[in-house]
Amino acid sequence: MAASTPAPAPRVLAVASHVVSGYVGNKIAVFALQSLGYDVAALNTVQFSNHTGYRQWTGTKVSAQEITDLYNGLRQSYLDDFDMMLSGYIPGAEAVVAVGNIAKELKESNKHAPGNFFWVLDPVMGDNGKIYVAEDVVPAYKGLIEYADLILPNQFEAELLSGVKIVDLESLNTAIQALHDKYRIPHVIITSVNFSPPGQPSSHLSVIGSSMTSTGKARLFKITFPSIDCYFCGTGDMFGALVTARMREAVQAVPGLISQPSWLSDDSASAAELPLARAAEKVLASMHEVLTKTRDAMPGVIERTRARLSEQDRASGKGEQQIKSKASELQLVQNLECLRSPGVEFKAQQI
Amino acid sequence: MAASTPAPAPRVLAVASHVVSGYVGNKIAVFALQSLGYDVAALNTVQFSNHTGYRQWTGTKVSAQEITDLYNGLRQSYLDDFDMMLSGYIPGAEAVVAVGNIAKELKESNKHAPGNFFWVLDPVMGDNGKIYVAEDVVPAYKGLIEYADLILPNQFEAELLSGVKIVDLESLNTAIQALHDKYRIPHVIITSVNFSPPGQPSSHLSVIGSSMTSTGKARLFKITFPSIDCYFCGTGDMFGALVTARMREAVQAVPGLISQPSWLSDDSASAAELPLARAAEKVLASMHEVLTKTRDAMPGVIERTRARLSEQDRASGKGEQQIKSKASELQLVQNLECLRSPGVEFKAQQI
Repeated sequence: MAASTPAPAPRVLAVASHVVSGYVGNKIAVFALQSLGYDVAALNTVQFSNHTGYRQWTGTKVSAQEITDLYNGLRQSYLDDFDMMLSGYIPGAEAVVAVGNIAKELKESNKHAPGNFFWVLDPVMGDNGKIYVAEDVVPAYKGLIEYADLILPNQFEAELLSGVKIVDLESLNTAIQALHDKYRIPHVIITSVNFSPPGQPSSHLSVIGSSMTSTGKARLFKITFPSIDCYFCGTGDMFGALVTARMREAVQAVPGLISQPSWLSDDSASAAELPLARAAEKVLASMHEVLTKTRDAMPGVIERTRARLSEQDRASGKGEQQIKSKASELQLVQNLECLRSPGVEFKAQQI
Repeated sequence: MAASTPAPAPRVLAVASHVVSGYVGNKIAVFALQSLGYDVAALNTVQFSNHTGYRQWTGTKVSAQEITDLYNGLRQSYLDDFDMMLSGYIPGAEAVVAVGNIAKELKESNKHAPGNFFWVLDPVMGDNGKIYVAEDVVPAYKGLIEYADLILPNQFEAELLSGVKIVDLESLNTAIQALHDKYRIPHVIITSVNFSPPGQPSSHLSVIGSSMTSTGKARLFKITFPSIDCYFCGTGDMFGALVTARMREAVQAVPGLISQPSWLSDDSASAAELPLARAAEKVLASMHEVLTKTRDAMPGVIERTRARLSEQDRASGKGEQQIKSKASELQLVQNLECLRSPGVEFKAQQI
C-alpha cells in the first residue's frame, strides 16, 4: 500500500471574502483549488449574504485581530505547513497588515528552503480609475508587494502601484518594469488589459505577464482572447485561484525549478516559455469556457427568478439589479470539467 | 444554444460550522455537494481555525441574530430559492431556533408545491452516551424535528429524541417507529449503529434507515459495511452532505416522486427499494473508499508533521494529539472520483 501512496496534496492558505450565496472571493477560490486537487485552508475575511454587486447585502467583516488569532490557531496545531498562499479581498488597512504578517512569517519560516513557499497576492484596491477601498489600504499594500512572489493587479491597480499611467502597450511595459524595479516582485500578471476608449467595448482582451530575469529585467508575454460582452463579478478571483494552481503545475514540469527562489526561471527561458505563461494560458481557457456557459444560461436564470417576484415588484421593475446579479453568478459547479480539463487554447506571445 | 442548456443546478442551503484547515461541517458539505453538481449556499455558524478534536482552536461563533440577518439578506435579493436545506452543527439553542425558523419559512413558502423543498436535519447533540452541547439545545431540536423531511441522528441522538434505549435490533426498530409516531418525520437514518460492548471493536458497522408509509408505519432497511479501525472526525457531516445529494438523485429516478410531499414513496415500495436505501448505499460506498484512502495515507502525514517539530516538542511528546488529528483529516480533495463515482457496493436489506 505504502508504495502506491500518492504525493500529498499541496496545501494552500486562501485568505479572501466568503459569500453565503454565489461566487466571488473564497467561494470561488476554495472550489477551484479543491477541484484541482489542492488542500485548501480557507480563512474568510468577511461573511456576507451575497456579493456587493447586488447593491444590498447583510453580514459581518472579520477584524484584523480575528485574522491573526485564526492563524495562530493553525500554527499551534502544526497546520501552518503551507506550500502556497493566495490573498484576495481584505477589509481595511489593519487587516491587510495582519495578512501581510502571516505571509512574512511563512516566508521567514521557509527561508532555509527556497521555493517551499509562494505567495500570490491580488492587491484588491479598485478598478476602472476608481479606488473602492479605504485610502490607507493603498500604502498598506505598497508595503507588502516586496514580500509576494506573484501579484495580480488589474490595469488600474498596476498604475497605483507602479506610478505609471497605462495608455498603450509601451506604457504598460514601463509599468511592469517599474514594478520589478521598485518592489523586486518576481512575477506580475496584469489582468484585463483594455486600451479601448471607455464605453467602447472591444472584441478582444489581453492579459500581460512577466517573470523577471536574475538581473530584474522584465520578460513580457501577452495572451489575447475573445471578450464576452457581459459583466461578471468574481472573474479576478477566479483568475487568481486558477493561476495559483496552474503555476505550481507548470513549475513542476521544469526539472529543479520548484526549489529555486520564487520559482524564477533561468535567464535562458524566453517570455513565451515561462511557466507563468503556461499557467495563464490554461487559466484563460478555463475561464473562457465557464464564462461562455454562464452567459448562455443567463436568460433561463432571469426567467425563473422573475417568475418568483410578486406582481407589484414585477410591475415596478424592483429587483432587476438583483436578478441581473444573480443571473451572472459564475456557473462553476456545473462546469467542473472546464476547470479541470479545458479544451480551448489561447497561446502566449513574447512582446 | 438555448435548446441545449442543461437543467439548472439544484440549490442547497448548507448551515454548519466552518474550519479554516481540515474537513468537518461545511468544509466537507460544500465540497461534497459541489463536486456532485449542487449550487451550495454556505451559511457558516462558526469560523474556527480547526475542529475541536485537536483539543485547541481559535475563532468565533456566529450569533443567532447574524444567522437570521444572513438569511434575510438572501431573501431580499431573491436568493432564497432553495430546493434543499442541510443543517449540521449549530452553536446554542437560540441559534438552533433561528435555523429552524429559516427552514419553517422555506417550507411555508413552498407549501403550494409539495416536494419543492426538502430539509435534511442532522440533530447534532452528542455521541456515545454523552451530550456535548448545552442542555437547552435538546428541547430546541425536539421542537424542530416535525418540520424536517429526513433526520440523521446517531444511535445516542436517536435515543434522546425517541426516548427509547437502543441495545439491540428490536429496540432500534422501536426507536425508529417512535420517531415516525412522535414527530411524523418521514425519513430517518441512524448512522453508525453498533451493538458491541464498549471498547470492543466490531469488524462491521450498520446504518439503519426507514421511510414511513402513508399510515406512518416504518419501512426498515439495514446496510452493513466493514468498519475501519480508526477514529475520524467529520464522518457524520460527510454522510449528511452525500445523502442530501444522493437522495434527490434517487428520488428523480422514480417518475413523479419529486412532486410528492416529502418525497414519500408509494406504500407498494418495499424497504430495500426505497430511494433512501439507494442513496445510503451510494453514500457508504463513497465513504468507505475515502476513509480507506485516508487511513492508508496517515503514516505519511504523521511522519511529515513530526519532522517539522522542534527537538524539544518531539522529545516531550507534545503535539501528538494534534498530529494524530491532522493525519486523520478526511482526504476529500485527493479523492474526488470516490465522491463522484464510487466503485464498491454495499446493498440494503429489508429488516
